[in-house]
Amino acid sequence: MANEKFLLGIDIGGTSVKLAFLTEEGDIVHNWEIPTNIENNGSSIIPDIGEAVHKKLAELNIPHENLKAAGVGAPGPIDTEKGVMFEAVNLGWPDNFPLRDLVQEAVGVPVAIENDANSAALGEMWKGAGKGAKDLIAITLGTGVGGGVIVSGDIVHGAKGAAGEIGHITAVPQGGYMCNCGKAGCLETVASATGIVRTAKELLADYTGDSPLKGLNDITAKDIFDSAQAGDELALSTVDTLADHLGLALANIGSVFNPERIVIGGGVSKAGDFLLGKIEQAFKKYAFKPVGESTEIVLAQLGNDAGIAGAAWLAANKN
Amino acid sequence: MANEKFLLGIDIGGTSVKLAFLTEEGDIVHNWEIPTNIENNGSSIIPDIGEAVHKKLAELNIPHENLKAAGVGAPGPIDTEKGVMFEAVNLGWPDNFPLRDLVQEAVGVPVAIENDANSAALGEMWKGAGKGAKDLIAITLGTGVGGGVIVSGDIVHGAKGAAGEIGHITAVPQGGYMCNCGKAGCLETVASATGIVRTAKELLADYTGDSPLKGLNDITAKDIFDSAQAGDELALSTVDTLADHLGLALANIGSVFNPERIVIGGGVSKAGDFLLGKIEQAFKKYAFKPVGESTEIVLAQLGNDAGIAGAAWLAANKN
Repeated sequence: MANEKFLLGIDIGGTSVKLAFLTEEGDIVHNWEIPTNIENNGSSIIPDIGEAVHKKLAELNIPHENLKAAGVGAPGPIDTEKGVMFEAVNLGWPDNFPLRDLVQEAVGVPVAIENDANSAALGEMWKGAGKGAKDLIAITLGTGVGGGVIVSGDIVHGAKGAAGEIGHITAVPQGGYMCNCGKAGCLETVASATGIVRTAKELLADYTGDSPLKGLNDITAKDIFDSAQAGDELALSTVDTLADHLGLALANIGSVFNPERIVIGGGVSKAGDFLLGKIEQAFKKYAFKPVGESTEIVLAQLGNDAGIAGAAWLAANKN
Repeated sequence: MANEKFLLGIDIGGTSVKLAFLTEEGDIVHNWEIPTNIENNGSSIIPDIGEAVHKKLAELNIPHENLKAAGVGAPGPIDTEKGVMFEAVNLGWPDNFPLRDLVQEAVGVPVAIENDANSAALGEMWKGAGKGAKDLIAITLGTGVGGGVIVSGDIVHGAKGAAGEIGHITAVPQGGYMCNCGKAGCLETVASATGIVRTAKELLADYTGDSPLKGLNDITAKDIFDSAQAGDELALSTVDTLADHLGLALANIGSVFNPERIVIGGGVSKAGDFLLGKIEQAFKKYAFKPVGESTEIVLAQLGNDAGIAGAAWLAANKN
């Protein structure tokens, strides 16, 4: 182990920072977490990371010179070339925060940074469900809906770094719900965990039939999927609504990009093959035929480790 | 002129082949056309091109060694790496047609080939409305709706070469018209010249008011735009319908890919700033805010020369 070179993957979230040493092939050798301290405008987050890394190197008897490079995924818009982060509101950092240089100083190796959704997309491409693909779209169905777009093996950033905002595709052009982004009818309002719960409640309001969801005080996305798989009609039509919106949006992205794979991750994707089958069905219905035949929809494989794997990919390929 | 190097641009269409000698900077030095002879499975198309090129070189006193390379745009799906064309039904060529090698033999210089819509997109990027942009979408509103997607200065082909099929985005998810592609509700069914005429006829059927379109035997897209600009309400709502569908589709592409520019060309785009303003309005309504602010929608500038310019770009950059 003493002569092996390692990559450092860092995935900064609002409550914890995930850290890992990985081989140059992207296999995790050791991973751990530290809390994200957002007090004092998040001013101790990066010193905390530096300290944690140096301590862990010592603990594992890895000489610092065996650390080759680091990659960072962080929650917000990033200018990867300048190495700065904008509007990192949930970490408390000021605008135009020089994230790359500060982490570089703290860990003592070259650093590349990326938005966390993009980093997770890269992770799935390198070590997960996207393995071997060079053109892929990753979409994360969680509290919100995030995404990353990869063309020719690299992230597409776009004119203002706003590429990959799949959650803000307008899925409901007329009469849609307001989204946090200030626009109405975003995919996120109907295809996130929050969105599917709202759809269920809306359908329940006019529903005269029986449904296990009726007795619940606080419906969750999991309740809906469980009931749907058990055959409950209301839950089924809730899931169908989500699958239809998602299938349409993905089909339309597909007709423009024809990616090899679309990787679906995030909490909602835990509904697994049951949900995947319904999304695929809608996708094939709405997609240009050659796209429906050549673009594969698959479930993400790395779960919470996708960000770390992507950060390590950045470390290996962007330094 | 004797020592200057030239690029050869070839744009193969169903009725004519456009040819041009261009400088290495992409400026047309001389251009001309020959008819496309689709008889005998299009077997004389490429010999005709070879003969025309050699004759024209002699006529202009350009030594063959001053021809550096050639690019070809052709109407159908193409494997640019293998240099073959699939399903070139309207030229009569068999499937898996080795277009690149045959043209190379006929003109005696290295050749790169590309689908014609992609070639036009590259032309606008190099010498037209996309100048200076590296991420752009080109969309052609004609009898059908075609497109080309450029990321980091190069065409996105996708898994099965079906990227850029913007015309087959599903714009009308329920109750849309059948498209030639075999799917219903494609953008092409509502945003092409054919589509807008159909929309006008549909609106006219239930319209009790007065409209200059009522007296026409055979409504054209131009009639609709002319009447709309003159203030006719029915024509205006026809144009608004097109702009709304197109603005939504472009906004959704924009949120995934945040291109610097979206270039709108083709016959329908001759409606100019009047149409552009309406598309922009719909685009801004449906686009993720940072995309609405950073992605510019512009009219194509090269008209029928876009394909030739793109073919010359291929000659300069892909050989």
